[in-house]
Amino acid sequence: MDLLPEWLDQSLLSWLREDIPYLDPAGIVIDSSHHMTAVARAKASGIIAGLPVAERVYKLLGIHFSTDLEDGDPVTKGTEIYCVQGKASKILRAERLSLNLLTHLSGIATITRRATEILEKQGVRTRVAATRKTLPGLRNLQKYAVIIGGGYPHRFGLSEVVMLKDNHLRLLKNLQQAINQIKSRMGPFVPVEVEASNLEDARIAANAGADIIMLDNFGSALAKNAAMVLKEEFPSLTIEVSGNITLENLQEYAHNSIDYISMGSLTHSAKSLDISCKFE
Amino acid sequence: MDLLPEWLDQSLLSWLREDIPYLDPAGIVIDSSHHMTAVARAKASGIIAGLPVAERVYKLLGIHFSTDLEDGDPVTKGTEIYCVQGKASKILRAERLSLNLLTHLSGIATITRRATEILEKQGVRTRVAATRKTLPGLRNLQKYAVIIGGGYPHRFGLSEVVMLKDNHLRLLKNLQQAINQIKSRMGPFVPVEVEASNLEDARIAANAGADIIMLDNFGSALAKNAAMVLKEEFPSLTIEVSGNITLENLQEYAHNSIDYISMGSLTHSAKSLDISCKFE
Amino acid sequence: MDLLPEWLDQSLLSWLREDIPYLDPAGIVIDSSHHMTAVARAKASGIIAGLPVAERVYKLLGIHFSTDLEDGDPVTKGTEIYCVQGKASKILRAERLSLNLLTHLSGIATITRRATEILEKQGVRTRVAATRKTLPGLRNLQKYAVIIGGGYPHRFGLSEVVMLKDNHLRLLKNLQQAINQIKSRMGPFVPVEVEASNLEDARIAANAGADIIMLDNFGSALAKNAAMVLKEEFPSLTIEVSGNITLENLQEYAHNSIDYISMGSLTHSAKSLDISCKFE
Amino acid sequence: MDLLPEWLDQSLLSWLREDIPYLDPAGIVIDSSHHMTAVARAKASGIIAGLPVAERVYKLLGIHFSTDLEDGDPVTKGTEIYCVQGKASKILRAERLSLNLLTHLSGIATITRRATEILEKQGVRTRVAATRKTLPGLRNLQKYAVIIGGGYPHRFGLSEVVMLKDNHLRLLKNLQQAINQIKSRMGPFVPVEVEASNLEDARIAANAGADIIMLDNFGSALAKNAAMVLKEEFPSLTIEVSGNITLENLQEYAHNSIDYISMGSLTHSAKSLDISCKFE
Amino acid sequence: MDLLPEWLDQSLLSWLREDIPYLDPAGIVIDSSHHMTAVARAKASGIIAGLPVAERVYKLLGIHFSTDLEDGDPVTKGTEIYCVQGKASKILRAERLSLNLLTHLSGIATITRRATEILEKQGVRTRVAATRKTLPGLRNLQKYAVIIGGGYPHRFGLSEVVMLKDNHLRLLKNLQQAINQIKSRMGPFVPVEVEASNLEDARIAANAGADIIMLDNFGSALAKNAAMVLKEEFPSLTIEVSGNITLENLQEYAHNSIDYISMGSLTHSAKSLDISCKFE
Amino acid sequence: MDLLPEWLDQSLLSWLREDIPYLDPAGIVIDSSHHMTAVARAKASGIIAGLPVAERVYKLLGIHFSTDLEDGDPVTKGTEIYCVQGKASKILRAERLSLNLLTHLSGIATITRRATEILEKQGVRTRVAATRKTLPGLRNLQKYAVIIGGGYPHRFGLSEVVMLKDNHLRLLKNLQQAINQIKSRMGPFVPVEVEASNLEDARIAANAGADIIMLDNFGSALAKNAAMVLKEEFPSLTIEVSGNITLENLQEYAHNSIDYISMGSLTHSAKSLDISCKFE
Repeated sequence: MDLLPEWLDQSLLSWLREDIPYLDPAGIVIDSSHHMTAVARAKASGIIAGLPVAERVYKLLGIHFSTDLEDGDPVTKGTEIYCVQGKASKILRAERLSLNLLTHLSGIATITRRATEILEKQGVRTRVAATRKTLPGLRNLQKYAVIIGGGYPHRFGLSEVVMLKDNHLRLLKNLQQAINQIKSRMGPFVPVEVEASNLEDARIAANAGADIIMLDNFGSALAKNAAMVLKEEFPSLTIEVSGNITLENLQEYAHNSIDYISMGSLTHSAKSLDISCKFE
Repeated sequence: MDLLPEWLDQSLLSWLREDIPYLDPAGIVIDSSHHMTAVARAKASGIIAGLPVAERVYKLLGIHFSTDLEDGDPVTKGTEIYCVQGKASKILRAERLSLNLLTHLSGIATITRRATEILEKQGVRTRVAATRKTLPGLRNLQKYAVIIGGGYPHRFGLSEVVMLKDNHLRLLKNLQQAINQIKSRMGPFVPVEVEASNLEDARIAANAGADIIMLDNFGSALAKNAAMVLKEEFPSLTIEVSGNITLENLQEYAHNSIDYISMGSLTHSAKSLDISCKFE
Repeated sequence: MDLLPEWLDQSLLSWLREDIPYLDPAGIVIDSSHHMTAVARAKASGIIAGLPVAERVYKLLGIHFSTDLEDGDPVTKGTEIYCVQGKASKILRAERLSLNLLTHLSGIATITRRATEILEKQGVRTRVAATRKTLPGLRNLQKYAVIIGGGYPHRFGLSEVVMLKDNHLRLLKNLQQAINQIKSRMGPFVPVEVEASNLEDARIAANAGADIIMLDNFGSALAKNAAMVLKEEFPSLTIEVSGNITLENLQEYAHNSIDYISMGSLTHSAKSLDISCKFE
Repeated sequence: MDLLPEWLDQSLLSWLREDIPYLDPAGIVIDSSHHMTAVARAKASGIIAGLPVAERVYKLLGIHFSTDLEDGDPVTKGTEIYCVQGKASKILRAERLSLNLLTHLSGIATITRRATEILEKQGVRTRVAATRKTLPGLRNLQKYAVIIGGGYPHRFGLSEVVMLKDNHLRLLKNLQQAINQIKSRMGPFVPVEVEASNLEDARIAANAGADIIMLDNFGSALAKNAAMVLKEEFPSLTIEVSGNITLENLQEYAHNSIDYISMGSLTHSAKSLDISCKFE
Repeated sequence: MDLLPEWLDQSLLSWLREDIPYLDPAGIVIDSSHHMTAVARAKASGIIAGLPVAERVYKLLGIHFSTDLEDGDPVTKGTEIYCVQGKASKILRAERLSLNLLTHLSGIATITRRATEILEKQGVRTRVAATRKTLPGLRNLQKYAVIIGGGYPHRFGLSEVVMLKDNHLRLLKNLQQAINQIKSRMGPFVPVEVEASNLEDARIAANAGADIIMLDNFGSALAKNAAMVLKEEFPSLTIEVSGNITLENLQEYAHNSIDYISMGSLTHSAKSLDISCKFE
Repeated sequence: MDLLPEWLDQSLLSWLREDIPYLDPAGIVIDSSHHMTAVARAKASGIIAGLPVAERVYKLLGIHFSTDLEDGDPVTKGTEIYCVQGKASKILRAERLSLNLLTHLSGIATITRRATEILEKQGVRTRVAATRKTLPGLRNLQKYAVIIGGGYPHRFGLSEVVMLKDNHLRLLKNLQQAINQIKSRMGPFVPVEVEASNLEDARIAANAGADIIMLDNFGSALAKNAAMVLKEEFPSLTIEVSGNITLENLQEYAHNSIDYISMGSLTHSAKSLDISCKFE
């Protein structure tokens, strides 16, 4: 999968600048002509994500990068993640940024995979999805890691999907008219999702033309029931469930009428996957 | 405390762009002339951090922001965090970025405060500190949140402190000469820290002129003992302890000979503090 | 409608820089303390688009801007478009950029409105749509102008809609599998559109799960017929028609089975609407 | 001719970002290891301009680019414009930006060439010139295309030439003093042009020291007469004619006393030259 | 004079970032609610330049700025340059950048004024001019300071004036043809200057159509003689003299046939004018 | 020494843009296919600094760069500094930026070396140091040149060292409390320096916990005496001396109790080292 845009290099350079705003005084004693090999290894089990990003960091500093893995591969303690060869001073300078990205993205992929497996074990088609609760500047990479982990990225921003949430709904006099206006202006490319806090509101929204209904904070029993009722009435409707869903209670929401369950914690609270890089 | 630089606005604008790369189609139905009030409330307990950042996000969109809190204040479920007033379409557009920042930074401050309290209960002067294991683009804000939580920020990047870690040490023939070279070039403004994996190496590094010794992966008993020995021999030496230290085993490391304990998890794996914002 | 993102100011500043890379030597003789009023008037008939953009240009230079119009309003020769008041040197400096944007966007809105009216006169629900054939750096503004003119913006970029065109199709062994893979990864947020050069291919694509079929270069008779056949077989399918469609032959394509007709010329070859700005 | 600056790559990257603000989901199904050859061909007749720009877009994505043409060459329907070889996913990603630039710039070069030929047929030295009515962010490329088409670029911005237009003149008490002040400050590097709406004003401006007089909206007969009179009186004066001049009436303005005729339509309303790119 | 472009604020922000890449720890102890007044005073004699730049720095931090001076005014030790009022923490943060700019630009204006006066005392029309030997990122401000000091800015960059120097001339087979090509492409807006190392070459260049001849390293006697000869032969030719000209030998070059004398030292080696800012 | 960060290329590109905001019209006559060799030679004696920066400028334009020198090497009139080979048009375009950087940085290194030698001749350990009086945008390069010349860079910005100067001290009620607060928040990584205008204040500051005392404007006799007294009382204290110290009076300040002498003139008023580059 070649999903990452070319302009990522601009972000990587600005993140390298964050680490060295002025000079790198370690360069006083680290001979840049010294060629070395370094190997990164997992220090815990998980799903790797971000290898092409780490590779680009090293490439920006002229370091050769190789790996036998692909994003999405499982790793365990000791698995060799990648091997880099080049000038010692450059390897040392690229190390932290590449690891900070790789450990963070792998952490997201790992928890997403775990959530995905919980649902798969229930034998349902329900999927997990990320939210817009991402860390600023990292949204496309975090969503990428969710995809690698087997989750849906959900909308990336406000431009491509309109979601009418509780705050929006308080401002709208007529939901149907609002949805019509959006579709009349934007055409079929911008799906409209509506948040509902009870079945009745969900039904109103579906009737008003919503493409997706988000059942917010229904609890598992009501969510499953509402999803079933809605799917029967509106077969082409997409059903999202959200609100206080964790790895612990996720399986209670598994149901074929629920298309996906969104969890902000995939991106805003993921534990990083420990990886270290040592000269060989 | 007025620590945040003015250029932060440039980052905020680029993060707003991440959320709306093109247009905001919700603006088709949300009347920008509609003036509203919205209130953000904590949905869990913790330490608030990032209020001046959230305020700037709203200001960039012309929204009035007020709060009775200051960064570092404790909040519990239901505490009003801030109140904003202005055009409805602008409030909705600023909401996610300001919350993404505030919940993340508060999550960091909260776990840092917890770690700080664990050490304080032991009645020692030992402190916790962050590392360079931060999320790209967010380092100064993450370190800021650590400061708010009562931790030390540790070095912000490679430019202001030289840390000679295991990978560096493998490349150096003569540690003392290396430290001398750095100090001779950079003067007294750039502290030199050396990582040591046993007491003997620590002593060599201290003799070589290191300002700070980082005892890496010593375990609590050996770390405390080594710190004591070193402090006796080198009273002005700063002692850092690091390696697999968690909230669970942190108290074992509390000791007056240890200046601070660095924990990457403060910044790379912090759980965000849940806060939501609703129109009143 | 408040659709334009806040970061637009960064583009505007960089465009002001394009006009004054160094200094503005006219400032030697134009007294900045001289306050003036200037009025912009249409020199031809058309649909105005871009007023909020022009307003922002002036605001960046501290100039007061007022208008009785809204984007989408028709203007004729002599209509007052806007009035600005402020320092003469600043008005002169903002004039060209604001007019370059306003005349270009109004030109796009004008031709889009004309196309829209041609279809409306046929009494069909068919709409016109833009393409990705936009001028670099101006895509969101050009698409905005198309929306103002009554057209659909179509996809803004590669991230939010996958369109499998002839070049893609040559690379895919199995269209159905490809569509499944995309939907399995991206979920229901990323519509998949497939280009077809004949009815048989269109049917294959629809069966494979395409959300939108683009009938490319069918000519009007075949396009209408294919659209009818497809809509009957796949009622929820969206039908786009494209290829050598101009204002002259547009009406031949009007048909209720065709959802929209995309025309690159709306954005890549629009004639600008003449507007000038004079001190009063 | 090697006129294009190296920093153009920064603009190209930001334009690639405009097309892929997040990820490229087509990469899910397009194998990046698939190497392909694609050929771009003209679908209409015109003058090609922008080949080095298109080449740079492809180079940024690691694609090999070759062409037998040079900017300024005429093409007709079917002419091979360029051939690219590389990873399929990268070719697809670079295609739209490179074509958007190439078709737009070639459109400008084509109309400029047509205007140039109209004047050449009259056997005069009069030339066409562009204006500052360019599309924001594209000025240097648009002016470049005008040069390729045989026109003068005219001033690129406010910094290098002072043009005192009707709005300026209303603010100046003494034209001669104003011109003297500018020349006294800026030296001989900044030509001063003055707009005149009748022969008397033109003569005053020439006497005041203007290097260039722009005869604005004189109509062809008066313009030619005024140019002749002025050239006789002020032999070293440069004469520009402007105002409602189109390809249709351009030949009426051909006259050896007129140095050049500026036409905003060259850059603000050029029809793009149709070019498409297909895998071979 | 209002010469400075609006985008300067972007440079100022990036320069503020250079001073505070992360946080401002002085803000821990400096109360931002503390309002103060600070006054900047000259500590030496010279010509002030850059007041509008300093003002913008303070404005970016919300500080009120006032001054009785204008750029170009002479100051002596103790002269009050400006007064600022606002939050103490912000004044302290803006101080260094505004002074670094003001002292540098005033240094340039001061030496330029001195050079200008040397020539004025000789009663000739000869002027001094800057070169492209400027400090990267500061060219427009440095040239601005030269203008303030009474010098010509000379060309700001490669885009607006072509200067054919010794290195260029070695590559050209036919100077006249080269000049014709440039003028035929660029029109009358781009003056062509040719460097000459002896009178014969200067004459060839003038005959070839050069607008400006730069007599390089002629020494004062030969330079004056060559200028006289050339002016007689080519009355509209502009004559620049350059090469090892200092304040010490400048007066030897004063001659009415020499239009201006360019000195790189005005911008690459100017001594800054000492100014300090203290709380009152 | 490999001290320079990778993101420097972004600054270099923006500085190339400063020189060519639009197009490079010299490219009309300079054949880009013409390969040439050019050699840069010193035209005066000094210390070279900035070779890796110059090399990067050329590399950005695809030009091969070679040199026998290293930063810090002495050069005299005629010494070959570097040799470049590549396309003539690119060499000409890179020349000015690379020389502007190299001559400026070498000028700084040269004066720093001179100052360093003055102190070395006195047989003391006192060193010279730069200040924050640098030219905006060039701080890390200017400090780099000071390091090359043998001086200390001093703090690079506000983030890594707190210096409490006269203006700060006026705002603080209790110096000890202020220093404690900073250290309690920032830990041992942020040294605190205090400016003192007499010995008594210096002693108070040292007692309050300052790591560095800056003796400001003491004159040489008082400075040396104060330094001696303070060093005796506070052996680990670092002593900086500053204020009106020039190459002329520098030797009077040489004293083993003074750690370093800071001189703003190293960076704000350095005379550039003359270097020229010619085609061979």
